[in-house]
Amino acid sequence: MTSADTPIPLFGVILAGGSGTRFWPLSRSQYPKQVLRLLGSNSLLQATIGRLRPRIPPERLAVVTAASQADIIRLDLHRLGEANIRLWLEPEGKNTAPAVALAAALMGEAAGAEIMAVFPADHYIQDTAAFHKALDQGAELAREGFLVTFGITPTRPDTGYGYLKAGDPLAAGGLRALAFIEKPDLARAHAFLTEGGYYWNSGIFLFRRDVLLEGLARHLPALYEGIQKISAGLAPEALAGIYQGFPSISLDHGLMEKADNVALVPVEMGWSDVGTWSALHDLCSADGRGNVILGRVLDLGNRDSLVFSQDRLVATIGLQEMVVVDTADATLVCPRSRVQEVRDLVAELTRQDQVESREHLTVERPWGRYTVMEGGPGYKVKKVVVDPGRRLSLQLHHRRAEHWVVVQGEALVTIGGDVRKVLPNQSVYVPVETPHRLENPGPEPLALIEVQTGDYLEEDDIVRLDDDFWRKVKK
Amino acid sequence: MTSADTPIPLFGVILAGGSGTRFWPLSRSQYPKQVLRLLGSNSLLQATIGRLRPRIPPERLAVVTAASQADIIRLDLHRLGEANIRLWLEPEGKNTAPAVALAAALMGEAAGAEIMAVFPADHYIQDTAAFHKALDQGAELAREGFLVTFGITPTRPDTGYGYLKAGDPLAAGGLRALAFIEKPDLARAHAFLTEGGYYWNSGIFLFRRDVLLEGLARHLPALYEGIQKISAGLAPEALAGIYQGFPSISLDHGLMEKADNVALVPVEMGWSDVGTWSALHDLCSADGRGNVILGRVLDLGNRDSLVFSQDRLVATIGLQEMVVVDTADATLVCPRSRVQEVRDLVAELTRQDQVESREHLTVERPWGRYTVMEGGPGYKVKKVVVDPGRRLSLQLHHRRAEHWVVVQGEALVTIGGDVRKVLPNQSVYVPVETPHRLENPGPEPLALIEVQTGDYLEEDDIVRLDDDFWRKVKK
Repeated sequence: MTSADTPIPLFGVILAGGSGTRFWPLSRSQYPKQVLRLLGSNSLLQATIGRLRPRIPPERLAVVTAASQADIIRLDLHRLGEANIRLWLEPEGKNTAPAVALAAALMGEAAGAEIMAVFPADHYIQDTAAFHKALDQGAELAREGFLVTFGITPTRPDTGYGYLKAGDPLAAGGLRALAFIEKPDLARAHAFLTEGGYYWNSGIFLFRRDVLLEGLARHLPALYEGIQKISAGLAPEALAGIYQGFPSISLDHGLMEKADNVALVPVEMGWSDVGTWSALHDLCSADGRGNVILGRVLDLGNRDSLVFSQDRLVATIGLQEMVVVDTADATLVCPRSRVQEVRDLVAELTRQDQVESREHLTVERPWGRYTVMEGGPGYKVKKVVVDPGRRLSLQLHHRRAEHWVVVQGEALVTIGGDVRKVLPNQSVYVPVETPHRLENPGPEPLALIEVQTGDYLEEDDIVRLDDDFWRKVKK
Repeated sequence: MTSADTPIPLFGVILAGGSGTRFWPLSRSQYPKQVLRLLGSNSLLQATIGRLRPRIPPERLAVVTAASQADIIRLDLHRLGEANIRLWLEPEGKNTAPAVALAAALMGEAAGAEIMAVFPADHYIQDTAAFHKALDQGAELAREGFLVTFGITPTRPDTGYGYLKAGDPLAAGGLRALAFIEKPDLARAHAFLTEGGYYWNSGIFLFRRDVLLEGLARHLPALYEGIQKISAGLAPEALAGIYQGFPSISLDHGLMEKADNVALVPVEMGWSDVGTWSALHDLCSADGRGNVILGRVLDLGNRDSLVFSQDRLVATIGLQEMVVVDTADATLVCPRSRVQEVRDLVAELTRQDQVESREHLTVERPWGRYTVMEGGPGYKVKKVVVDPGRRLSLQLHHRRAEHWVVVQGEALVTIGGDVRKVLPNQSVYVPVETPHRLENPGPEPLALIEVQTGDYLEEDDIVRLDDDFWRKVKK
């Protein structure tokens, strides 16, 4: 087999454990960057999967994420209609080295591919053909026994990226990687560009599983020993115990920097890590005055600004190099030069335990979505939208009753032993402790207004008795 | 009678017809600047009335506004608990000269006060004692036959105000006014300050009714002739016909600039016309970094900025001399130096007929308020809050049905011939064409969620059969 004919089979590992706090208020801890549709109609994770498909089919693909993000990642895969992609859960996020090691343990020998290819879930690549070509080249190098990384040919003295210093060309193609360099200051970044031979560190890696394990054994022995105890059937509590002992370290720092068999595939592919609102601005096509304006925005004389509104009205006058991002419950206003500090802002919101750090008013579900419209002592109002043909779980609540008024579509409602159709302008009442189910049997979306009343109105007061999806059901 | 003993009785005319578009998004055409609570717990109009009370009792006070703003002004007076203040409605807004002339016509001879005192509804005066002293002095001058205006001693070269040039002192006190000067450029404003003898034009006037009418007859004859036909009992259509012929002109331009009997009372009273968000910033006490921060705002490193949030979360990083104002449905972001352009922005929203130019999601009513929470084809969801002891009109709708779910307090509900109590977690249904009434008989606010369904869901589908307030009832 040569690369010119059939590509070397790869096993793809997509690292989707990031929180992407720098995209707040669009990202939330329960709705992280990788599931945002920042560039087009697919989420960044979905786009990553789509980009790999010509080289790595879903059945040779695994997504690794933190257990706390399992629901939203599973939903993102579900929406893509991909049932064959494995989802591997870390008990806690511990940077990339443990995630990659976990993947190496779980893929075992069964994956049918000797070479692991590791990808961040939340980057952007414009030139897919160049990306595929680099993948093929990287696979060749990996087969030779190298730890391979992609080096992006820099186009500007960016101080937001790490850099790779390249050495001599290798016989098998690519270049020897000499050093990993942390984010430089501007002067140094300029020097890299002038001097040449420096590349942006893309966070994409290829290696044979056995070469990886050898490297871990040598440079991250605690991690290596830990994963010997990990197999697919391991109980989550046992996995959590093992994970506690893992160092929180990136694969770059923990392994790649220290190893002497690192190769670099130089590639120009229109890559960005989409790291900040300002980076996103750069990726979007701006108008003649340098503005990227999305949503219901009125702009009088802005320049070089990003203004995004999800659905409210945002009016701006004479902004210069500013970012304004508006969601249903929160608004960010910030100069482009300070977008890195959005992370500090989210840290503060998290410290204050503000709900806007955790979730949106509209929450996606496998059957559709709900929006919290209003709440007060003893009540909460939601709009519930059920996609055609879907139904919620058969469920009951211990501490709340629900009034439903159908406003669009057609509902099939089960309340206790009673099953009936409920049409627009009709209402039903679901008493406390009563098993009930909501289904949309029709061809159009079903929308209803739900008024909950009770002394406890959180999402965790739900006992599922039957479910069409992956959620836990009480036996 | 001398001014040292009993003040000369005044008849106060408060001009409350402004739209105050520069305070958007807090102001709307149906919720204008004068009813905003920008400085304290009273609206600017309420504060103006309160400031006058020691000199002008409610029964000698009239508020003039445009008919289109009657409801909200009436409500603002109602909330103040003032039933004795006259409300005079202009068929259309035509600047201050017609409004003052209308007041002169309607007050007739019956007012029991020979001197009219005219006040903008939406200004701020810090030093009430100085204001009262100037009123007394102005009344003396007015009694002597002068057209009197208040000249504010300037404290900075403000280019946002008109100026008055003062001449020699008058025997009766005050100064002769020599000229009215439009908003100057900065150089000229500086010169005024250096030279001395210039004052800010406050828009406050005092004159005998007969002296005003004489001046109108001479300088604004069309207006003078028109108001001869106006009396209290005139039909609104007839008034509208007369108004059509009136010039749209300010009292300054139309009369004061041309008359030769104008006097000026110089006064230092901490006055501001509260003309823009930036002027409001100047009136509020700023923190050590020059920021005025109100509401749920997270601020990382702002300077000299005004950030106001009604109730959503607004997060700002490193703003410098910016204004951010957030309401439930719209957000404004603008440098302080460009706040004048908010007017242009509202003009554009009005041209586009955007609802955010007209009203807020929460609409005040004499019985309480409602908030539009959500709407879509064939339905609308509101939260309705009824103040203790209040009730809505007995009403019916031709084209919508309503589902009510009580979430707080206690409702007394009339539907057709049926009257019943409805408690939290109980619901009722109001069919189309059915007379119904909602009352809060209890001591705490009543809150309910209303889901309207029907093919037409605007506010004007309401037939009132009985009402506790001033709204039109079908006989």
